[in-house]
Amino acid sequence: MPFSDMEGGLYRAWLSPAYRAAREQLSAWMVEAGMTPRTDAAANLIGRYPGTQDMPPLIIASHLDSVRDGGFYDGPLGVMLGLECVAALSASGRRMPFPIEVIAFGDEEGSRFPAAMLTSKAVAGVLDGVPDMADAKGITLAQALAEYGLSPGGLAGARHPGALAYLEAHIEQGPVLEAEGLALGVVTGIAAQLRYGMVVRGLAGHAGTSSMPLRRDALAGAAEMVLAVEAIARADESDLVATVGRIEALPGAANVIAGEVRFTLDVRAGDAGRRNRAAEEILDALVDIADARGLDFEFERVHDLPASPCDGRLMDWLEEALVENGHPARRLVSGAGHDAMVMAQLCPTAMLFIRCRDGISHNPAEYVEPADAEAALAVMLGFIEKLGATYA
Amino acid sequence: MPFSDMEGGLYRAWLSPAYRAAREQLSAWMVEAGMTPRTDAAANLIGRYPGTQDMPPLIIASHLDSVRDGGFYDGPLGVMLGLECVAALSASGRRMPFPIEVIAFGDEEGSRFPAAMLTSKAVAGVLDGVPDMADAKGITLAQALAEYGLSPGGLAGARHPGALAYLEAHIEQGPVLEAEGLALGVVTGIAAQLRYGMVVRGLAGHAGTSSMPLRRDALAGAAEMVLAVEAIARADESDLVATVGRIEALPGAANVIAGEVRFTLDVRAGDAGRRNRAAEEILDALVDIADARGLDFEFERVHDLPASPCDGRLMDWLEEALVENGHPARRLVSGAGHDAMVMAQLCPTAMLFIRCRDGISHNPAEYVEPADAEAALAVMLGFIEKLGATYA
Repeated sequence: MPFSDMEGGLYRAWLSPAYRAAREQLSAWMVEAGMTPRTDAAANLIGRYPGTQDMPPLIIASHLDSVRDGGFYDGPLGVMLGLECVAALSASGRRMPFPIEVIAFGDEEGSRFPAAMLTSKAVAGVLDGVPDMADAKGITLAQALAEYGLSPGGLAGARHPGALAYLEAHIEQGPVLEAEGLALGVVTGIAAQLRYGMVVRGLAGHAGTSSMPLRRDALAGAAEMVLAVEAIARADESDLVATVGRIEALPGAANVIAGEVRFTLDVRAGDAGRRNRAAEEILDALVDIADARGLDFEFERVHDLPASPCDGRLMDWLEEALVENGHPARRLVSGAGHDAMVMAQLCPTAMLFIRCRDGISHNPAEYVEPADAEAALAVMLGFIEKLGATYA
Repeated sequence: MPFSDMEGGLYRAWLSPAYRAAREQLSAWMVEAGMTPRTDAAANLIGRYPGTQDMPPLIIASHLDSVRDGGFYDGPLGVMLGLECVAALSASGRRMPFPIEVIAFGDEEGSRFPAAMLTSKAVAGVLDGVPDMADAKGITLAQALAEYGLSPGGLAGARHPGALAYLEAHIEQGPVLEAEGLALGVVTGIAAQLRYGMVVRGLAGHAGTSSMPLRRDALAGAAEMVLAVEAIARADESDLVATVGRIEALPGAANVIAGEVRFTLDVRAGDAGRRNRAAEEILDALVDIADARGLDFEFERVHDLPASPCDGRLMDWLEEALVENGHPARRLVSGAGHDAMVMAQLCPTAMLFIRCRDGISHNPAEYVEPADAEAALAVMLGFIEKLGATYA
């Protein structure tokens, strides 16, 4: 498969041969579309389309890298839509007051090194030096940068001097738009995320010799907790989601009552306050369940990522463009992280979600209807016009 | 630790050096107690105390082997109580009409080879040839028998010519007697056991991007199933128990909704009909839960072990001896398997359960109060007298 580092599927890792090949192809297309491409110190490819005034650019971006055996749309679709926006303006000889920079970020997925969004962090100027990490083969980030022909100490050199706004189109990676029959949605922000590790302790015992009333079954208790998590999240009719994705019962034998169960809890919402209230309600419920069953219960907060709200004015323009193109207005939070949440530290951000089939991503089955991609292009162009009109 | 194959804990595997040493010590005690010891073709140690009549023996037995890092009582306590019964008779110069054979079985736990109760199976005559199996080091059963000095083809030679009755005292391995403040209980039989493997399939998805109403979360479904299993077993006020001891969610990441969950179900009851009705009720409930949640549900029956009821007349005598020694009458089923269930194929069986602390077994924390062991001895002697009286 072209532009892939694996046989029989798509895997494009930052700074890999496939990454280099993809950048080269994209660079040629940028030139065709009237842009001047450059490579920054993080190997991001930046195509610049000049404006009529001397002002900071609108950045339209997404990422070129993919997870192993991933899909074709997560990342590259947003880059290609940026390219098409400029190509459309360029074809009609139009320039906006501001320059437009289309950025293909190199690393959003953590595709090669054990950290995500390294390259947008470099552009946003929030990265200190070169993080000390190595890929699966033991090659350090500094070595990989040097092998790619970049200065090993130079990630900080990718820092952007400042932008007017940031626009990213991305597949939804969820089933909401499809379920509502919508092609597009305006992202209100990246959800605030809480992650916990839980431990429930009861009393292990022989499955045949411990009568039901005398049991302190850690797995039965954990099951009641999983249902409580689901019930509390379902009762909240906002964008709040809560998930138990991992569970382990110890000792984990068919003929032994579980003495200990470990599970994870992930809680997200567009609003951190709502998220925190839900997490508190969940933890209270879990403590009550443990108490009622005579189980011990411990939890540890593993992550606490703040929400990254999109800019209100940019969201309004994106929604106006949506409606003007015949789409119902729909705003939704992004439960997943995106480069936009990093770039929010550089400038105001906006994101457009595009429907994807069955909500599937990070999988070869990932699919976007061409008509939906074209609808996204029209809305993005409408947004650019609205942004441009404010400087007319 | 003496008589152990591991440092710092007890592990006594069939045909191991620790097993040989334990047998030698026990053999010496048997001689002291007035018995004639012999070794059968399965390396079981059998001490015979003659009777006054030419008739088949009463067998009093349990096993000498232990699980790795096990306790001191599971098995050996029953052997030692058999020894003490004969020592008490011998000390007062009494003989019963029937001979008494105290058997120390070599393998009940599957302590060395991947099969349990090999040696009582050999004695009961239900073993065909030498099973083709190897221990963790790759030594075959035939090799191990030869190395121990036994005929590699000779397990069948351990077949017993026939017995009057079989009596086994064993720790309860459960919390029932302790919870009721009882030292001893009469076992009604070995529970019939059903074992299933379950698979629940939903739709894996991003924990951040799949809104609650659109989820088909296999783990939330499995949690509801675990609670249904518990509720149905609890509602049955007999000896029925049902356990989910193993669970696995796939892909098993904190930020991914589980697409598939696998879990085990173990159902036991003294009465196979009751057990089967409960299992059917559980399976019906699980299918309903899967249907209501839009999940796929599959199950496979892994084991179906019949119940092994103890002999009614022997139970009555054991209970009479219990009451005559000042204990309340209490009958209970054994959820765990024991050599008695194998020996039931040779002769009528009886089992006496002895209270163990916190219901713990297969663990160094296993403990029996000396007073409870002495109470068991008195009840066993009473039982022997009652059996003897029928031949007077």
